[in-house]
Amino acid sequence: VIWWDGVMSPAEPFASDATLADVGEFGMIAALTGRFEQGEQVFVGPGDDAAVLRTPKGHVVVSTDLLVEGRHFRRDWAPARDIGRKAAASNLSDINAMGGTAHSLTVGLAAPSDLPVQWALDLADGIAEEAALVGASIVGGDLTLAKEVVIAVTVLGTCTLAPVLRSGAQPGDVVAIAGRQGWAAAGLAVLARGFRSPRALVEAYQRPLPPYAAGLAAAQAGATAMIDVSDGLLADVGHIAADSGVAIDVRRDSFELAEPMQAVGSALGVDPMEFILGGGEDHAIVATFAPDTTLPEGFTAIGTVADAGEEGAVVTVDGAAYAGPTGWKHY
Amino acid sequence: VIWWDGVMSPAEPFASDATLADVGEFGMIAALTGRFEQGEQVFVGPGDDAAVLRTPKGHVVVSTDLLVEGRHFRRDWAPARDIGRKAAASNLSDINAMGGTAHSLTVGLAAPSDLPVQWALDLADGIAEEAALVGASIVGGDLTLAKEVVIAVTVLGTCTLAPVLRSGAQPGDVVAIAGRQGWAAAGLAVLARGFRSPRALVEAYQRPLPPYAAGLAAAQAGATAMIDVSDGLLADVGHIAADSGVAIDVRRDSFELAEPMQAVGSALGVDPMEFILGGGEDHAIVATFAPDTTLPEGFTAIGTVADAGEEGAVVTVDGAAYAGPTGWKHY
Repeated sequence: VIWWDGVMSPAEPFASDATLADVGEFGMIAALTGRFEQGEQVFVGPGDDAAVLRTPKGHVVVSTDLLVEGRHFRRDWAPARDIGRKAAASNLSDINAMGGTAHSLTVGLAAPSDLPVQWALDLADGIAEEAALVGASIVGGDLTLAKEVVIAVTVLGTCTLAPVLRSGAQPGDVVAIAGRQGWAAAGLAVLARGFRSPRALVEAYQRPLPPYAAGLAAAQAGATAMIDVSDGLLADVGHIAADSGVAIDVRRDSFELAEPMQAVGSALGVDPMEFILGGGEDHAIVATFAPDTTLPEGFTAIGTVADAGEEGAVVTVDGAAYAGPTGWKHY
Repeated sequence: VIWWDGVMSPAEPFASDATLADVGEFGMIAALTGRFEQGEQVFVGPGDDAAVLRTPKGHVVVSTDLLVEGRHFRRDWAPARDIGRKAAASNLSDINAMGGTAHSLTVGLAAPSDLPVQWALDLADGIAEEAALVGASIVGGDLTLAKEVVIAVTVLGTCTLAPVLRSGAQPGDVVAIAGRQGWAAAGLAVLARGFRSPRALVEAYQRPLPPYAAGLAAAQAGATAMIDVSDGLLADVGHIAADSGVAIDVRRDSFELAEPMQAVGSALGVDPMEFILGGGEDHAIVATFAPDTTLPEGFTAIGTVADAGEEGAVVTVDGAAYAGPTGWKHY
């Protein structure tokens, strides 16, 4: 995530005593947008999955995420090793979504003094294991006491091709997805109701399996825009629509409803399509391609790009507005 | 800071129910040391002021720090803008200590929902202002709710010369310092007693003035080792001694006792030399140079490097062991 990921409106003037609660995440992020001047070396600044910097000594792609206990993870919902893997995955996925390759991570850990040492070691092992999937190392970090556990991960990488931004989708393009979608959200719903099965979904929540080869493959195939699904599918497709100034329609029938998703839908009385359309945290990759493109391995077409038209850069489902949840709310 | 900054001993076997409180910061850091395999691209890994990565697309110098409210800053002891400046300074200083130049920062902010928006904006402005002193930009970040304020800063930079490590000091070298030393520690002592003056010291604590030109100048002058004083002068000189396998003697009479330092010593009944020898957070730069080197502008000789001898890589003051506080304890 890069700070104002998904901001669509300028900052409002706030009351002088306004708090974060009054303003909300997007309001606060909008207020920060534009506050920072960008140097010449900043090729891609705030607002995409990652920033891209070009310096006389080379270039670097960077992204950062904070994970807070009770908000982004619960120690009773996943083992420390999985929390570590997930913390790394969410960052590595941002580099993936630029078409880049991650090489290094830094990890900051703030934790209470009663944190079990073994928990911290398992967390660190999980981060290192996930990083090793793409050949990246943990090169440093920081450790400090705090009231609650906060994990700060920053990932660095490189792009061998031009980075694929959110802003390049063109009318007529095909929208395609790589990786599982909705499984983590379904697993979270299961855990939130106090259940532990279907096991496949709980595990999908605890340990996502981002399609790490998909980003580079999409870039090589000429993807016009790309994003990592972390906020929720429609919310993230909406980021592409907004940044590209296009309308996007997503088709329900392009998604297969795997057996565990059907089972959880029945068990919880929820349309499993809600997990697919609204879920994030699987770190699937959504990319747009010119219509004549042969989709790279692992990608499935899920929609089409059209002119923004009178309604602006909207996202529709089967041609109509979607009333269900479209994404993950942090505030 | 890079995670296990200052670790001098290997990990112990811990009791299976050990907590961070049992093990301490250094113990925990030691336990993490060596747990992470380093990839080929890692030219300088954990254990110096910053990590240095060499990739086919160039190189990058990176360091990261966490600042926790009540531990690293207090909202009633400094305005938000100064807290931002200081947060940036501590990271920029780590790049300085490698002889590098910072170009980009990412900032993660975790905060309670009742945090005033203006405080967050002022914090951000302070970070950007400090970054601008060296030509760096804030290129992205993350924002989330949490119980307490945690600021995670990661800084990226480049080295135009070979990075200057902690491990290169040679017997016979001169030890020299650039920048104010002990002022921040004296200012903190003043604030901790409930005073607000001498104003110059309080301001030095609130807003350090790191010697940002000193790192590159030292590298150009052929510095053999270098470190940023953040833990405390003798503690950080000790890192050079340990990593270089040498003994270092620091001379008290090489430091001038500026008037406010004398005043605070009298007022608080403390030998002001304790602030100089034990203080960190001014982000002074300590470097070692071959004996025939003309010290770069801004550097003052404060000691000498000798063979480690029988007592090992020790730091002495005026030829004797030092009994006062040598550094900042986070745990």
